[in-house]
Amino acid sequence: MTQLRRPLTDAERLDWIRLIRTENVGPITFHRLMEQYGSAAKALEMLPELARRGGRPKPLRITSKAEAEREMQANRRFGAQLLCACEPDYPEPLAAVDDAPPVISVAGHAHLLRRRAVAIVGARNASLNGKKFAESLARELGTAGLLVVSGLARGIDTAAHAGSLASGTAAVLAGGIDVVYPPENEDLYRDIVAQGVVVAESAIGTQPQARHFPRRNRLISGLSLGVLVVEAALRSGSLITARMALEQGREVMAVPGSPLDPRCHGTNNLLRQGATLVERADDVLRAIENLRPPMLAERQRDLFSAPLHTPAPAAEPDESDLAKARALVLENLGHSPVTIDELVRGCQLSAPVVLTVVLELELAGRVQRLPGHQVSLA
Amino acid sequence: MTQLRRPLTDAERLDWIRLIRTENVGPITFHRLMEQYGSAAKALEMLPELARRGGRPKPLRITSKAEAEREMQANRRFGAQLLCACEPDYPEPLAAVDDAPPVISVAGHAHLLRRRAVAIVGARNASLNGKKFAESLARELGTAGLLVVSGLARGIDTAAHAGSLASGTAAVLAGGIDVVYPPENEDLYRDIVAQGVVVAESAIGTQPQARHFPRRNRLISGLSLGVLVVEAALRSGSLITARMALEQGREVMAVPGSPLDPRCHGTNNLLRQGATLVERADDVLRAIENLRPPMLAERQRDLFSAPLHTPAPAAEPDESDLAKARALVLENLGHSPVTIDELVRGCQLSAPVVLTVVLELELAGRVQRLPGHQVSLA
Repeated sequence: MTQLRRPLTDAERLDWIRLIRTENVGPITFHRLMEQYGSAAKALEMLPELARRGGRPKPLRITSKAEAEREMQANRRFGAQLLCACEPDYPEPLAAVDDAPPVISVAGHAHLLRRRAVAIVGARNASLNGKKFAESLARELGTAGLLVVSGLARGIDTAAHAGSLASGTAAVLAGGIDVVYPPENEDLYRDIVAQGVVVAESAIGTQPQARHFPRRNRLISGLSLGVLVVEAALRSGSLITARMALEQGREVMAVPGSPLDPRCHGTNNLLRQGATLVERADDVLRAIENLRPPMLAERQRDLFSAPLHTPAPAAEPDESDLAKARALVLENLGHSPVTIDELVRGCQLSAPVVLTVVLELELAGRVQRLPGHQVSLA
Repeated sequence: MTQLRRPLTDAERLDWIRLIRTENVGPITFHRLMEQYGSAAKALEMLPELARRGGRPKPLRITSKAEAEREMQANRRFGAQLLCACEPDYPEPLAAVDDAPPVISVAGHAHLLRRRAVAIVGARNASLNGKKFAESLARELGTAGLLVVSGLARGIDTAAHAGSLASGTAAVLAGGIDVVYPPENEDLYRDIVAQGVVVAESAIGTQPQARHFPRRNRLISGLSLGVLVVEAALRSGSLITARMALEQGREVMAVPGSPLDPRCHGTNNLLRQGATLVERADDVLRAIENLRPPMLAERQRDLFSAPLHTPAPAAEPDESDLAKARALVLENLGHSPVTIDELVRGCQLSAPVVLTVVLELELAGRVQRLPGHQVSLA
């Protein structure tokens, strides 16, 4: 394989957008469809039949060319760039993630995303000292040539962006690229667009909702070699980012703090679990110095390269076999998530058959994907 | 071996005191002499000849019976008990230490030393929060049935004693059992004698000097299953206690703190090196729950039992061989410490010969023992 990644034509990009914006299609399903059908165009063609086979009563609402075109135009007008996961400019560490967003909007200086990056995240209600620490650490890491990634939230995130604004900072939004949240960070947002880079997975214009934040967090860690958590209570969003970093094989780092401050319980807990202890910029630099940007996983390399050049649709199992398999999969699924592996073992069917059935059921809206290769009844 | 430890007669105790209070005799040398000669009486008899062979120009000043008797009387008058390392009441975890003090003074409730113990130590200039934390943790550990050991210093030590006064606390002094340092802790000292227990290695009446404090710290860790450090700057005395705990095979625990506070750099560093992170009493209880009080090491078991019953003086090497060995050892020693093992390898002599020569040179005041089985020219 010589050239694994390539820019898409406008027509291809339009198909990618149509596919990922279609109801019941999440990133995992998107990648699965690409794997199965070799191109977004072919996948779009197959969608109605797949959903019907999955038992969907009314037809699947597929995003139209006009809608996708409007999204492309809105990004262009706003000055944002759309990058697809197979394209050379798409950040490689993010492309290596299992559920990499197929399409991202990027505003500001996209070239910053080529830098080695580290995420700094933490409590919204951070202490003054915590914010001071995050800001000065971000400044030093920026000066050392790293891109500092965070989530534009109050507290630690804001401090991290402020400290690295001059050297290079990336804000990842939960809503659309043009929707600032929290509103009080409007000025910071403008500064980052002017001097840094902003990234969003949601379609332009999307108002962020609670469910968008954990999804956004996987981008923060996915863009980075490691995630540093500065102050976090137990069961806080920053710990979700840390868990995602761990699942993505990234370095997890934490700043120690007083046991008397609940804002340090989450970070101290990370340390207890083996996170790298960080007291100064040098600790971060040493922790990531030997890390190389994660390469595209084998599966994704196949997905994003070979099939685009030599589409080779997989042989489909016989429909009567699939019908039996579908009944068996539904019987084995409940409202508590199980992993695909458990499902394959439980059904005693081949993995490709289970994957096909799950894909159909998902498109039909009867099954939902959850983090960690899990599924449950919708 | 049925009964490994036994109470000494007053005459034997007198000999132990004479031997350990004699110039150039430290704990290691004491134990080596016991190993070689089977009893303190026999060792005292051999001292002048050993020191002469080591090249001492004037005779070794051996503590007289009258002086040792006065020390015993002074302890009795003060209400303190003298315990020798082979006696059943001597704390077993301390007896297991290589350089266990041969004799300790104990004032207050000696029976507390039979409890499972944990040390809490830390900065003298501790923060209010650090002291508050140490006090409440000590209270909880005491309530859980542990003896809390500390050093009666300002700051964390004082807080640890205060918190565990009612349940059981042990103060280890650097000077004599009757010398309170710092003077401001006079009241706390009295309270501990009344409700807890006080331990000292130095002879009664000894004013503490700088060199006594690191030696004292090995008793704090030696009495305990583990040492918890609450706030400590880099290069502070508490870290010496932590290092000693590590060398003695005890659990090392530390409380995390803000990187912005230099009083937390030492503790954070311990965490970085693998110390157990402690945020609450439960963390300590879990860390030590499966630890058993360290048993007497094999060497010491031999030392404190068999030889006392069946003294079997080791065969002495020939004097002309020893003279050559002495020259070789002196040639191989400098003012930088080397381990006994290195010395044995460097001299290409047998270990017993090197140990004998080092013992003689030490008694002659020409060689000194240092922590970690090291020696150097005096």
